[in-house]
Order: sequence, then C-alpha cells, then structure tokens
Amino acid sequence: MLTIYGDSISGNCLKVKWISDHLGLAYRWIETGVLTGETRTPAFLAMNPAGQVPLLLLADGRPLAQSNAILLHLAEGSPLIPADAYERARMLEWMFWEQYSHEPYIAVARFQVRYLEKPVESLEPRIVERGVQALQRLEAGLADSPFLVGQALSLADVALVAYTRVAGEGGFDLAPLPRVRAWIARVEAALGIG
Amino acid sequence: MLTIYGDSISGNCLKVKWISDHLGLAYRWIETGVLTGETRTPAFLAMNPAGQVPLLLLADGRPLAQSNAILLHLAEGSPLIPADAYERARMLEWMFWEQYSHEPYIAVARFQVRYLEKPVESLEPRIVERGVQALQRLEAGLADSPFLVGQALSLADVALVAYTRVAGEGGFDLAPLPRVRAWIARVEAALGIG
Repeated sequence: MLTIYGDSISGNCLKVKWISDHLGLAYRWIETGVLTGETRTPAFLAMNPAGQVPLLLLADGRPLAQSNAILLHLAEGSPLIPADAYERARMLEWMFWEQYSHEPYIAVARFQVRYLEKPVESLEPRIVERGVQALQRLEAGLADSPFLVGQALSLADVALVAYTRVAGEGGFDLAPLPRVRAWIARVEAALGIG
Repeated sequence: MLTIYGDSISGNCLKVKWISDHLGLAYRWIETGVLTGETRTPAFLAMNPAGQVPLLLLADGRPLAQSNAILLHLAEGSPLIPADAYERARMLEWMFWEQYSHEPYIAVARFQVRYLEKPVESLEPRIVERGVQALQRLEAGLADSPFLVGQALSLADVALVAYTRVAGEGGFDLAPLPRVRAWIARVEAALGIG
C-alpha cells in the first residue's frame, strides 16, 4: 500500500490526496504538520532531505517527493495525462509554471495571511503583484477551452486548482475572473471535492 | 525545423540548446534579450503570454514554454529519460525541485550580481541562505551515484547543471562541494560543453 505524508492545510499535499482518491488507489495518509515542525525531525529528513511534504512512500518503501512529480507518477497511463505528445507537453508547461510563477505568490500569500495571521495590507507588494499576474494568466489560458489543456481534465488542472480555489484566503479577488471561477467549479466537480 | 527563442546568458535557455545539440535536432536559434525587453514585445507575448524565454516553436509553429517542459518534450523516447518508472519519477522530482528550490536562489543571485552589478554583500540574506542549502542538497544527492538519477546522464542533470556551473558568478563557493564539482565536469563532458 502507498503511504502519503501530508499536511491537510497544504494545497500541494491535497493534490496528491485528490488524485489518489480519483484513481481509486489504496493509501495510508499520515498527517504531518508543517507548522508543528514534523517535516524537520531527523526521522522525516531521513526519508526526504528537502524536509517538505507531500512525500510518497511506494509499497516497497522507496520515497518520492515534489507534488507534481508524485502526480505524474501516480497518474501514469491514466486519462489525466493526455495521449497526444503536444498536449502532454503543454500539461507539463502549466505544471512547471505553477511551481515557479503561481505557487510562490498565491500559496505564500495565503499561508502568511491565513496561518501566520499577517494582515493582507502588509504582504510584500511583489508577492501580491505577481499573484495577480498569475491569476490573470490563468484567466487568459481558459479563454478557448473548459480545461487548461484541451477538452478534458488533466494533471495541469489539478496542480493549478489546489491554491487557486483558496486564493481568496490570501486576499486575492477572483470576482473579476469569471472563467477561473467556472473552471474551479468544473475541476472540483470532476474531482468530487469542494 | 524547430525554432528556439532564447537568451544566451540564461541557463534555462542554454539547457534547451544543449539538449537539442546532444540529440542532433535541427533548429533555428533566435537570440532574444531579457535585459533589452525583447521578451515583452507584443509579438513575443502573442507567442508566449508569460513573457519568458526559452520558447520553442514546433515545426508547425505551435509554441511550448517552460525550459523543463521543453526538455521533456524534446527528449521523449531518448536515453535521457530513464525507462524505469521510479527512476523517471525521481528525475521529475529533481526537475521540479530545481525550479522551486534552486533556480530562484542560485540563478537569481547570479543574475543580480553578474548582470545587474549588485555587490554580493547586498544580496537578500534569504536568497543566499537558500542557495547554499540547495547546493548542499545537491552534494548529498550525489553521495551514491555519478549522476542525480542512477548511473547515467538524465534530464535532471541537465536541468540542474545549468545554473550550478555558474553559481560562483552569484558569489556561491563550490570549493567545499567536491561531489558537485566532479559532477559538473562529468555532465559538461557528456554534453560536450564547458
């Protein structure tokens, strides 16, 4: 059976849970608190030297880290990864963009406001500005299709919905982004969450 | 023929060039300056709304962005992507880690020092600290094997060598990291660069 070390307040961890549920995989979830230092114990660091959740242990105990690498591993051969080479590449483009240009602003703002109780007004302007740009880019990316890559749900949607759906908790306003709001509802319905 | 829009001062762009050369792909390189605003023109933004290089245009003109997504697309079916599912997943883990925990510190410090002529002493302490941590993590990751994933060169090595080999330009000291230094030489030799 798979083991997932995750913190339920983390969108990166929830992604892995949603995909495991969606694919009907059997797993054990071990709640591992980021705020309580459980990702920094010697025992955890021995499994993941990066000291981050989510962490997947395969049935034989081999570890795998990085949420999007875990998604790609678990979903291999499923319809969540497009069969077409170009669509697959675009899915990967969104997933790398998520970790570089979306998560560091949207997730970080939400963490600081909701969990560190920092007032929205005192967030770094750079974080707010780039977060807004990321959300606008998502809105533009949804102009021609119901999902980020073509007509069907893919890992790109799962990776990007995780923090977009809670962007409001970091002070971001989704009201001017109707396509993003409709897409969030669509992805949540497809995953059976929300 | 492929078209690559890239800036030769960018490790993210050079990755794509190295892999194209290594795989013997025919391509046209269009030098596109980040510092001169060439990634922000209306014509460029129409191809890549994220306003970033590298950007690949396939032979039929379809665009693909994000350096690591481009590498994965170009190298599909080649020995640079391990055939074993777990090794492939570990390669992806390193590639996502690179964009989240390495590039934002090592590449950003190098850009500020070398191209914006900022003194090393005035870099944000957070950037320096996390950059050092990333390099130490690489050193540990090379304890048991000549390459990041097993015994052979993979895209993980290409993705990570790009900015590690020029980390010194951002003020980072590779002297205390003998495995990293030997690995850089090994990857450069395998790619025929250096």
